[in-house]
Amino acid sequence: MKPDKILGERKIIEIIQNHLTHMPKMPIPFGDDVSAYDLGNHKLAVLKTDMLVARTDVPKTMSLWQAARKAVIMNISDFAAKGVKPLALMVSLGLPRGLSEEDIQEIAEGLDAGAREYDAYILGGDTAEASDVIINVSVFGIAKKADVILRSGAEPGDIVAVTGPFGKTAAGLKILSENLKASRNIRQLLIQSVLMPHARLREGLALSKTKAVTAAIDSSDGLAWSLHEIGKASNTGFLINKLPTARETQTFAKLNKLDPVELTLYGGEEYELVLTMKPMLWSKAREATAKIGATLLPIGKVTAEKHALLRVGGKTCAIEPRGYEHFKPDTI
Amino acid sequence: MKPDKILGERKIIEIIQNHLTHMPKMPIPFGDDVSAYDLGNHKLAVLKTDMLVARTDVPKTMSLWQAARKAVIMNISDFAAKGVKPLALMVSLGLPRGLSEEDIQEIAEGLDAGAREYDAYILGGDTAEASDVIINVSVFGIAKKADVILRSGAEPGDIVAVTGPFGKTAAGLKILSENLKASRNIRQLLIQSVLMPHARLREGLALSKTKAVTAAIDSSDGLAWSLHEIGKASNTGFLINKLPTARETQTFAKLNKLDPVELTLYGGEEYELVLTMKPMLWSKAREATAKIGATLLPIGKVTAEKHALLRVGGKTCAIEPRGYEHFKPDTI
Repeated sequence: MKPDKILGERKIIEIIQNHLTHMPKMPIPFGDDVSAYDLGNHKLAVLKTDMLVARTDVPKTMSLWQAARKAVIMNISDFAAKGVKPLALMVSLGLPRGLSEEDIQEIAEGLDAGAREYDAYILGGDTAEASDVIINVSVFGIAKKADVILRSGAEPGDIVAVTGPFGKTAAGLKILSENLKASRNIRQLLIQSVLMPHARLREGLALSKTKAVTAAIDSSDGLAWSLHEIGKASNTGFLINKLPTARETQTFAKLNKLDPVELTLYGGEEYELVLTMKPMLWSKAREATAKIGATLLPIGKVTAEKHALLRVGGKTCAIEPRGYEHFKPDTI
Repeated sequence: MKPDKILGERKIIEIIQNHLTHMPKMPIPFGDDVSAYDLGNHKLAVLKTDMLVARTDVPKTMSLWQAARKAVIMNISDFAAKGVKPLALMVSLGLPRGLSEEDIQEIAEGLDAGAREYDAYILGGDTAEASDVIINVSVFGIAKKADVILRSGAEPGDIVAVTGPFGKTAAGLKILSENLKASRNIRQLLIQSVLMPHARLREGLALSKTKAVTAAIDSSDGLAWSLHEIGKASNTGFLINKLPTARETQTFAKLNKLDPVELTLYGGEEYELVLTMKPMLWSKAREATAKIGATLLPIGKVTAEKHALLRVGGKTCAIEPRGYEHFKPDTI
């Protein structure tokens, strides 16, 4: 284990994928939000696993209950993006010595709360001794093959939409880590977006039924990164002409002399869905989300040119392919 | 996170189970080797997750390739005990900074080797930054409900059998950690049993088909612990009259003045299956294992009295409910 050079998370994933035997006829390719096994009869078993490490993924003010709940939410968010209902969860816990009975209870209750919010159950798991608090959640679901939304179906001319405003978690994290200013109400709302994230499962399931969605991803690595991932998988680009910045993020940015564009595009730890949609079915999609009291904001178009561009106020600039990444020196 | 008192792994699991909402009509109860979701039509989705932490689960001489392979084997072993074929695996890696490209390759190749040995594929996963090397494997399979072997079906009078001799890994671990003596050949064989474990999947699948097995468990926490787990789930006891000590373990124990009974019963990190079987179908089970060139050793009987007893050489003693447990002070 000699330290060689610092490998980024995406490089590590690439190395791993290159050294695995690929199952023939994988119904969902490596690198999408979820994986799947073909059950025949046009049905898929849909699988996801995601690891939360408290030391790197959890702000200090987050309770164990909130961290455990978040470990569930971040998995369910990926199912939401694919339009698949999560049915059952398995949980592995890596725990340092010396946790109290109350700590363990908090973790169990947070896990259960996250699962029950989305009508899923935790069926079993494992515990091991580790240096960090580690919560690994695996999710299982069943879906019709034709209903699963991949990252790869975007077409030039499709409408790009998101399920809610962006930039709240980026602002909330800055309040928590750098103690930046905000009015009491806004402060609370921004911090809450970090501590109590929600997965857009109702939105993902409702939109999947409309057949309007051509590609989707959740935005846990940030809006910019999500767009680039869809672009890479679909072989397209984007022209974003309406930045979905949250009102509270605008106010917060102004007060602290921060760039709201930066907070909106490159924040991460957000769980909105980023979707591309057939223009012909846009109003159907909009109706479907309105019906469940949810939001669907159009923010731009898919383009044939493979660049992600932002054009607002008459100015055009590139949306960079960056977002949160583990292991990177700049995230130390 | 105030340290309160040191909680053992089994106590931690109990606390967690008490704070989870239990899915109605769970096809396999909490605490068995695997979990399941009822798919209807008498079919189950079978799920398992298990976390390997290098610092506590991996001897220093074990390579990353071997550790990654072992993380797969220990999961597949649980499927083997239930008679269920593993189809797909998901892997989460917690990795410290500073691993080299070769390290990551080794891990990926070890994972792949473990999966391919049992005809399964790794479909996807996640990586996160952690203080330890952590390998979490989740397994998915499909089974007919009636074919899954639980821990709870043992009946008084059933034959107790194992799929191979015991005590090799306990001896191997002693050679590795305490540098005890052994002849070159035996030393190599005992160490190999630690570094290159095998899951008894062929045995589990073949035996499940005979309908002879009433209860089963893998022996990763040791033979004694496995018997107690079946006893607890089935409400029975055991009279063991033939201790399945490996020949090499006998020789090793004699040379080092160790108790071979201790090495056989309380070792752990072994992946043999411990099974209880209908006496009427014993010869059928024996034939089924002989046909695939496998071993099936009868070691005693299931009893109605809820004690686990060992009766050899005219002497009877209790088999204690102990085995390897994370977090316990005596495993520091």
